[in-house]
Amino acid sequence: MEQIHYIEAAAGRVQQEFQSLAGQMVSLHGAVSKIRKMSGFAFVLLRTAERTEQCVWEEGVSGFPLELLCEEACVEAEAVVRAEPRAKAGYELCLKSVRVLSAPAQELPFAVGNKEINTSFEKMLDYRPLVLRSEKERAIFRLQACLCRAFREYLEQQGFTEAHTPKLVSEGAEGGANIFRLDYFGRQAYLAQSPQFYKQILTGVFERVYEIGPVFRAEKHDTSRHLNEYTGVDFEMGYISGFEEIMEMETGMLRFAMEYLEQHAGRELALRNVRLPEVGRIPAVRFHEAKELIAAKYHREIADYEDFEPEEERLLGELIRRETGSEFVFVTHYPSSKRPFYAMETPGNPEVTESFDLLFRGLEVTTGGQRIHDYAQQVEKMKRRGMDPESFGSYLMLHKYGAPPHGGLGLGLERFTARLLELENVRQAALFPRDIHRLTP
Amino acid sequence: MEQIHYIEAAAGRVQQEFQSLAGQMVSLHGAVSKIRKMSGFAFVLLRTAERTEQCVWEEGVSGFPLELLCEEACVEAEAVVRAEPRAKAGYELCLKSVRVLSAPAQELPFAVGNKEINTSFEKMLDYRPLVLRSEKERAIFRLQACLCRAFREYLEQQGFTEAHTPKLVSEGAEGGANIFRLDYFGRQAYLAQSPQFYKQILTGVFERVYEIGPVFRAEKHDTSRHLNEYTGVDFEMGYISGFEEIMEMETGMLRFAMEYLEQHAGRELALRNVRLPEVGRIPAVRFHEAKELIAAKYHREIADYEDFEPEEERLLGELIRRETGSEFVFVTHYPSSKRPFYAMETPGNPEVTESFDLLFRGLEVTTGGQRIHDYAQQVEKMKRRGMDPESFGSYLMLHKYGAPPHGGLGLGLERFTARLLELENVRQAALFPRDIHRLTP
Repeated sequence: MEQIHYIEAAAGRVQQEFQSLAGQMVSLHGAVSKIRKMSGFAFVLLRTAERTEQCVWEEGVSGFPLELLCEEACVEAEAVVRAEPRAKAGYELCLKSVRVLSAPAQELPFAVGNKEINTSFEKMLDYRPLVLRSEKERAIFRLQACLCRAFREYLEQQGFTEAHTPKLVSEGAEGGANIFRLDYFGRQAYLAQSPQFYKQILTGVFERVYEIGPVFRAEKHDTSRHLNEYTGVDFEMGYISGFEEIMEMETGMLRFAMEYLEQHAGRELALRNVRLPEVGRIPAVRFHEAKELIAAKYHREIADYEDFEPEEERLLGELIRRETGSEFVFVTHYPSSKRPFYAMETPGNPEVTESFDLLFRGLEVTTGGQRIHDYAQQVEKMKRRGMDPESFGSYLMLHKYGAPPHGGLGLGLERFTARLLELENVRQAALFPRDIHRLTP
Repeated sequence: MEQIHYIEAAAGRVQQEFQSLAGQMVSLHGAVSKIRKMSGFAFVLLRTAERTEQCVWEEGVSGFPLELLCEEACVEAEAVVRAEPRAKAGYELCLKSVRVLSAPAQELPFAVGNKEINTSFEKMLDYRPLVLRSEKERAIFRLQACLCRAFREYLEQQGFTEAHTPKLVSEGAEGGANIFRLDYFGRQAYLAQSPQFYKQILTGVFERVYEIGPVFRAEKHDTSRHLNEYTGVDFEMGYISGFEEIMEMETGMLRFAMEYLEQHAGRELALRNVRLPEVGRIPAVRFHEAKELIAAKYHREIADYEDFEPEEERLLGELIRRETGSEFVFVTHYPSSKRPFYAMETPGNPEVTESFDLLFRGLEVTTGGQRIHDYAQQVEKMKRRGMDPESFGSYLMLHKYGAPPHGGLGLGLERFTARLLELENVRQAALFPRDIHRLTP
């Protein structure tokens, strides 16, 4: 039929590498990130998907007026590759012709083509769509994407299945007031604080399951380490013999991820000057002993026997690094009072739980542990906490109809990224951060 | 320090294959999915992470009473592999000893160890945590996970970067009343109907970007093809010369995904009897011509010149398959009135847009197109539609400060899965579906 035509599959993408093409004409596209006028010529830095190319406009040689270009114009260009030992890449691109595909309507409020962006932290957040264009800012998220790839690849090798669980839920998993509420066709709904219930349920289905997705916390904290929406890297595994298996899995995952970054993101690691941590075996210390160690070594009084202060986490990180060389440390056996109702208590010592946090460079980046799988035990613990098991009917189907012994963890992707890149504020590791003041961009 | 011990990385997981181990003792774990008593022996089907193993309990041979076991008990077992040509796998496992790790508190409301689950569709949704344990139900989601892997692998090969964009937003991208609202620290917030604004913004950053994540639609539809929360497979690409490039990218992605499934999910494809579609080149037809074709071929009157009725989509799919053999068809140039404010109009014909839908087996599974990249043009179109550009300030930074020509698409993962597996209802392709009546499990 004449009305029908056909769409062919896209051709494969070819990574552009110009080094070895000296003397040849090449075509490329990108955004003009900087123009530096000299006498009779100008440097035109072009930001492509991969890197920034040093192009040169020359009077009488380039077949168009320099005025055609401005910062953040998107262009297609033809250029001749010229070896240039003074250029960082060892070559430059001599512009022959340019086609402007799209031009900005307004001048930038600040330059994004320089090494560092010269504006306030608040402005950096307000102008996120622009700030992210800077090669150095962009690299943060190329590394984050690479991390996710590594996590997935490792988990899939280990037999985990990816799940997509609902974010609109009828009950929060973590309890407390830190939950967003909304109307769902006349009923009260919440935004999931984690995929906790669903990933537990799915250990009865897939045995091993993971999800990388958004989680929501209505916490009123306004600190450098809290976000109200963040990306949770969650996994859960059935048929475990104890919670140490979960820590072993995380150790393997982190080791794999660090090697993966080294192999696949060398350019971005260099651009951000990232110091990758060594992941050999990871030291572990019990919560109460950690508290005492910190108190003894740093001559501090223990104010709260049931939780860490941020300063204590930092000091513990420092102490462990000095003693063992590791920038990671597992803290185990957190007090039951501080853990959710699904946490398994330590046999013979119900005051503490079969649980752990992972600290990385002095900050908690993971919480995990073994969960209760026995129905009677779970119902009893819920009642002890004043919860109504009836409200958790579909979650408790897991336990009622037979759950394998299981446990898992949640890792905050932005926090982990921030620690890895030694960014001061977790907001710098979120493309479009959400905090109590910020719902845009 | 004596307080410190060390966590080693997990050992690699070994896929259990018993075929070639006849005569040997093996250990395995899983849930008892069915017990069939015979005289003097019993078949005990064990559901492992990979498949269902036929085990045999024999009086006087197995060192434990059969009563130790019940359906959905989680066990660890030692067994001897025995060649058995009558068994489907060619072997069976002769149980020697068993350790019950966990037992259900209650008998199942219906069996999940049979080929088909014998209960109503509503019950299937109510008892999702249990229903998903069935090997055949589970296979749907193993295939879905495999699809996501394929999509990601293809897009990454093509230079796309994965993004995590916020689901809590200050403005909806698709307009209309179909949006969930909530209070965000005293301000009005919405749940993202798609990552539209953010993925567009990110074409200015990464050039090519994708996200697989939840999207929310407060639609009151109660049909077999609508969900109120679903998984969007979204990509967006900069520096395109026209919207056909987006269709080409999707064609490549689908072809890759079908081959990937064939290579990596043979067991699940067989279990579900999946008929994989061929993806060669995909036929495309203009919206208005499609309307006329359907009217002419099926002697129907055109009731609505601006949209398809579901029956028309079905008929178009049938017609195209008959004429070309393809189970996919692109419909292009949708009326401007039916497309959002960011859709690019066709030069010389502002009544239609540079946009498309992809129909698969008679159902729309993708919507995509080229977007406006020029600031003045976008602002003008918003005003024409009675929108206030001031409310979209951070989105419009993209256009104001220079956007590449770009476009992209969104594919509904559950819909695609449902069509691929020929499931009647899209809810069957969601682990825990959300519809206007259903917020649990």
